[in-house]
Amino acid sequence: MNLILLSGGSGKRLWPLSNDVRSKQFIKIFRTENGEYESMVQRVYWQIKEIDPQANIMIATSKTQVSAIHNQLGDDVTISVEPCRRDTFPAIALATAYLHDVQGMSEDETAVVCPVDPYVEQDYFEALKNLGEQAAKGEANLVLMGIEPTYPSEKYGYIIPRSNGNISEVDTFREKPDSETAKTYIAQGALWNGGVFAYKLGYVLEKAHELIDFIDYADLYQKYDTLEKISFDYAVAERESKIQVMRFGGLWKDLGTWNTLTEAMVEDSIGNVIPNDTCEDVHIVNELDMPILCMGLRNVIISASPEGILVADKEQSSYIKPYVDKLNNQIMFAEKSWGSFQVLDVTVDSMTIKVTLNPGHKMNYHSHKYRDEIWNVIAGRGTVIIDGMRQSVKSGDVVTMKAGCRHTIIAETELKVIEVQLGSDISIHDKQKFQLEE
Amino acid sequence: MNLILLSGGSGKRLWPLSNDVRSKQFIKIFRTENGEYESMVQRVYWQIKEIDPQANIMIATSKTQVSAIHNQLGDDVTISVEPCRRDTFPAIALATAYLHDVQGMSEDETAVVCPVDPYVEQDYFEALKNLGEQAAKGEANLVLMGIEPTYPSEKYGYIIPRSNGNISEVDTFREKPDSETAKTYIAQGALWNGGVFAYKLGYVLEKAHELIDFIDYADLYQKYDTLEKISFDYAVAERESKIQVMRFGGLWKDLGTWNTLTEAMVEDSIGNVIPNDTCEDVHIVNELDMPILCMGLRNVIISASPEGILVADKEQSSYIKPYVDKLNNQIMFAEKSWGSFQVLDVTVDSMTIKVTLNPGHKMNYHSHKYRDEIWNVIAGRGTVIIDGMRQSVKSGDVVTMKAGCRHTIIAETELKVIEVQLGSDISIHDKQKFQLEE
Repeated sequence: MNLILLSGGSGKRLWPLSNDVRSKQFIKIFRTENGEYESMVQRVYWQIKEIDPQANIMIATSKTQVSAIHNQLGDDVTISVEPCRRDTFPAIALATAYLHDVQGMSEDETAVVCPVDPYVEQDYFEALKNLGEQAAKGEANLVLMGIEPTYPSEKYGYIIPRSNGNISEVDTFREKPDSETAKTYIAQGALWNGGVFAYKLGYVLEKAHELIDFIDYADLYQKYDTLEKISFDYAVAERESKIQVMRFGGLWKDLGTWNTLTEAMVEDSIGNVIPNDTCEDVHIVNELDMPILCMGLRNVIISASPEGILVADKEQSSYIKPYVDKLNNQIMFAEKSWGSFQVLDVTVDSMTIKVTLNPGHKMNYHSHKYRDEIWNVIAGRGTVIIDGMRQSVKSGDVVTMKAGCRHTIIAETELKVIEVQLGSDISIHDKQKFQLEE
Repeated sequence: MNLILLSGGSGKRLWPLSNDVRSKQFIKIFRTENGEYESMVQRVYWQIKEIDPQANIMIATSKTQVSAIHNQLGDDVTISVEPCRRDTFPAIALATAYLHDVQGMSEDETAVVCPVDPYVEQDYFEALKNLGEQAAKGEANLVLMGIEPTYPSEKYGYIIPRSNGNISEVDTFREKPDSETAKTYIAQGALWNGGVFAYKLGYVLEKAHELIDFIDYADLYQKYDTLEKISFDYAVAERESKIQVMRFGGLWKDLGTWNTLTEAMVEDSIGNVIPNDTCEDVHIVNELDMPILCMGLRNVIISASPEGILVADKEQSSYIKPYVDKLNNQIMFAEKSWGSFQVLDVTVDSMTIKVTLNPGHKMNYHSHKYRDEIWNVIAGRGTVIIDGMRQSVKSGDVVTMKAGCRHTIIAETELKVIEVQLGSDISIHDKQKFQLEE
């Protein structure tokens, strides 16, 4: 199975656990059998690997998520990197061109496209396989998954099938309706459009060449920023007449809001939380070290990260976005391909962060124009390279770097560093990367 | 007026803003006319100074609060330091001996004792003056303030007066009753005992010599830790027959719980809080830098400090103490006589703190047995002394100190330092102080 997982979104609805660099699919919220927590993207990835260990999984995503994906899924995962955000049609065209031009697959091979963030069980992945097999038959150019609605949702688009069979021709599509209209759709046998579909590579490549002037994957990648923002539904699906829908009646949840996300939590709380038996239907996710004590609350969500603290009535939590939009966008923590960092303190002319490097990993070799830095190694062993000079470091060592000086740090064991940044224009944009001569 | 302000309590009921080193009276929660915030102790102190600029104010408190008092009231305030906690009778005896033996006042002078944390207005301090003047007349050995009850509280002791006059003999005292009994007391004209009273110094010194074998202030201070824990009410007031009570009918609130404290807040929130109009009767005090967003809540208190986060139904918040008792007692922030510190990060073998020194102030000259330290100066100018060697420091400088090395830092301007502590036994108890040879 060739599977293209679309990993998008800024995830402001799940603030403060998601932010501009960590989308909701990277929040570790699902308890696994060994007692650790995994994210939506980890959960989906391992679910697929369990059903089909040979599955050719590609994650289509933007540059900003690449570090987080490597951090959570390892270095071996295949990523189709979108140089910038251009909606689903260009993203799917790029990933499809990658399968054909880079991985060398024939135009007759099928691919299944699926968002990375539904909360589902194994039967969903069996259904994806069936979707791919149906597309391989060539009865239709596109085979969509139609999810059997469980309530008249106003959040989803609807697919109206011609028949009630397991596989049917698509009659038409309907945009997100109000609740009353949704009821009439459902009475007609309508299904939710979850953005899941299968096709032969040749079909999407043909559509792509119709709409975009490009030669191959490399060329498409090059001119990606000039492409028009357009959704796959609008550009392709809604204009296609040879199109089928296959029913899916299993568990499918879109965990896009705190309200729906907490329904999928096995425990009431994650992190340092002091239990209090006067609370009812309260969910807490605490990523801070400090304890949260809650007393006498009902139907409330509490969530805390270095970005901030949310305390919301469950229903009200769906309306979070405009409030989060007003926040300043200082990134307070992030997962990188080499580890993670967290902002500890910010003053007018300084910032103090804690950097954790995974064993064997290193930062880019880089310099800053407008700030000096001091590394205080607090745990582990490694090597720093400062303007080309190598030096071993261990817990207790201090390294000072003036603005302009090129530097990196390489972790031998897990390495923890308190980094003090000093300057009047501290910004994540003040960074020049260099090739490291090994 | 000689005023002895009793500053006691650990303030766990107002966690996380109060902790083992910051009692509730030091929380800055009252907005002043210039837009800044002041604490209970600051509010009371400046209220007295306004009524009577010549007032001789002495704060009777334990060692642990001395730094916070100097930080909030300045270096000039008179403090009667209790070497350890021994309840109110020894504390009042010690403060009274200080007035007599150190400040040289005659036995005929009067003193007024009053807790530092009632929420009151100017008429209260007028009443304190009247109380002192009544005691000066010598009609009684003790003159108590009797607060007119506003509801049948179960939290206070009651004074039963002989008459309903403004000044009356005391008939008897009643311990904290249940609500029904409180109603019958109030029907008899009972008044709340707020722990406020006036006396001539000679009277309390005589009682002190009766109960404690000591010579003078210095001797009493010396043997303070051998004294029995006993309250002034039990040791003196309840056994005295020449005792009067003076009525007070003005505003008097005991802000001992979140519920009562928030009633005295002028605004709904203090600190970085994102307003949301779907909340009703919600009070938020946020001492963290990160924002708090709350949505759709009712009758809720949210309070956040580096110690932790409380989210509580207002009524439930009164029952906080047992939960706070269970917390580990790592102090995460503190106000010191020289400035303040805040813990930023804790790992197994390290702790990172941010230290702020006020201009002209310095730490004690000290060393640690079991930890190395690194100072990263991030703002200001000053001088460090390391094993007797002086050195100027400014923003960007780094100083490393091995375990055993004696060190201090002196602020010329306001000085901010990121201090990294490294060792396997990091504890506030690992500190040896030394005399600094200037």
